[in-house]
Amino acid sequence: MSGQVEAKIEQLGHRLPAAPEAVGFYVPVLKTGNLVVTSGQLPFMGKELVFKGKVGSEIHEEDGINAARICTLNALAQIKACVGDLDKVTRIVRLEGFVQSGEKFRNQPHILNGASQFLADVFGEKGRHTRTAIGVSEMPLNAAVQIALWAEVDE
Amino acid sequence: MSGQVEAKIEQLGHRLPAAPEAVGFYVPVLKTGNLVVTSGQLPFMGKELVFKGKVGSEIHEEDGINAARICTLNALAQIKACVGDLDKVTRIVRLEGFVQSGEKFRNQPHILNGASQFLADVFGEKGRHTRTAIGVSEMPLNAAVQIALWAEVDE
Amino acid sequence: MSGQVEAKIEQLGHRLPAAPEAVGFYVPVLKTGNLVVTSGQLPFMGKELVFKGKVGSEIHEEDGINAARICTLNALAQIKACVGDLDKVTRIVRLEGFVQSGEKFRNQPHILNGASQFLADVFGEKGRHTRTAIGVSEMPLNAAVQIALWAEVDE
Repeated sequence: MSGQVEAKIEQLGHRLPAAPEAVGFYVPVLKTGNLVVTSGQLPFMGKELVFKGKVGSEIHEEDGINAARICTLNALAQIKACVGDLDKVTRIVRLEGFVQSGEKFRNQPHILNGASQFLADVFGEKGRHTRTAIGVSEMPLNAAVQIALWAEVDE
Repeated sequence: MSGQVEAKIEQLGHRLPAAPEAVGFYVPVLKTGNLVVTSGQLPFMGKELVFKGKVGSEIHEEDGINAARICTLNALAQIKACVGDLDKVTRIVRLEGFVQSGEKFRNQPHILNGASQFLADVFGEKGRHTRTAIGVSEMPLNAAVQIALWAEVDE
Repeated sequence: MSGQVEAKIEQLGHRLPAAPEAVGFYVPVLKTGNLVVTSGQLPFMGKELVFKGKVGSEIHEEDGINAARICTLNALAQIKACVGDLDKVTRIVRLEGFVQSGEKFRNQPHILNGASQFLADVFGEKGRHTRTAIGVSEMPLNAAVQIALWAEVDE
């Protein structure tokens, strides 16, 4: 049975995916104290990395925004896999956002709003997080965006 | 009434600014447990982003150092906005520093010392933090520096 | 007397170095609650930075992997310096990995597996951490890799 948060995700027209596996010798998520931390999530849909390239030069901003939302869905899937139910989240604490950026592309905040707005829509007040927004030159697997989340949970 | 830490900032010739608003759908600061986390702060003075460009190629190191200190003042303003008084800070835990860097500029530690030295001057022992120092190719709004702080507070 | 974790490191053919000093006005490690946080560690062996250059263009992947393991040894040395004994580590929580990357080098996960695999070998289940893997254009001192660790400790 899915909880209220997951129902809200579906109401918004999305679906929580299966939690992607780690791309290396690490784990995608863990809990320490009442904090759940995810590894950096890439825009995978199933086994396919759906948005590759540098935002602003090789791919459009709109694709970057979609990539950011998909990363976020994957991060939420990780948090669910860790604690069993997204309704246990009391606060999204932090979003670390990295955008693979073409030369002179400086609109990373706009891209990452695809993630931040989605978290606000899904969690309401609990979704209002802190954020770092960085443009990087090279990303694993040529992914357009990488996002890691820290969440506070009550269980 | 301002506390001892804020008095020290003024004694050093600086002034705690109004806490800058977030550049997107997120919050600039929040508290989880006894940790206060800020979003990445840019070198804003009021509404103006005062240091733009790549350090080492487009702007001088001295400007980068000033930018780092302004980011830090903004981060401290966020922490004050969150907990009411900087005297509640028991330790600056972590500084995440990103420097928009020109080609072959590898002196990021020198730039970020503008932040680290300032924290040491303001907080003494409590200001001795851990740090990551990264050079990135593209920064939101072409900002020269971005800094996020984690602080431990007692309240 | 060294503990079981340190014995394991030696059994794997490595030796915990002296904890490197900070490259600036900050500290290399601190403890907040039951979390130990390190500053970003560079591939120093003693005073020498042993792997410089951009992975994939200026230096080989194998060197990047070695650099990642040396950064990790240095981070573990910092954690030991902080809590006295690596046996107190109950979980490696997070590895923040930055690889100075040549143009179009997107194999950062492979490089950072040099760190992640080492942590798994040394700590077993307790070493299974979350990770961010980022390719950056410019690194302090031209270091090939920078790694910071967060660890949960029991003391």
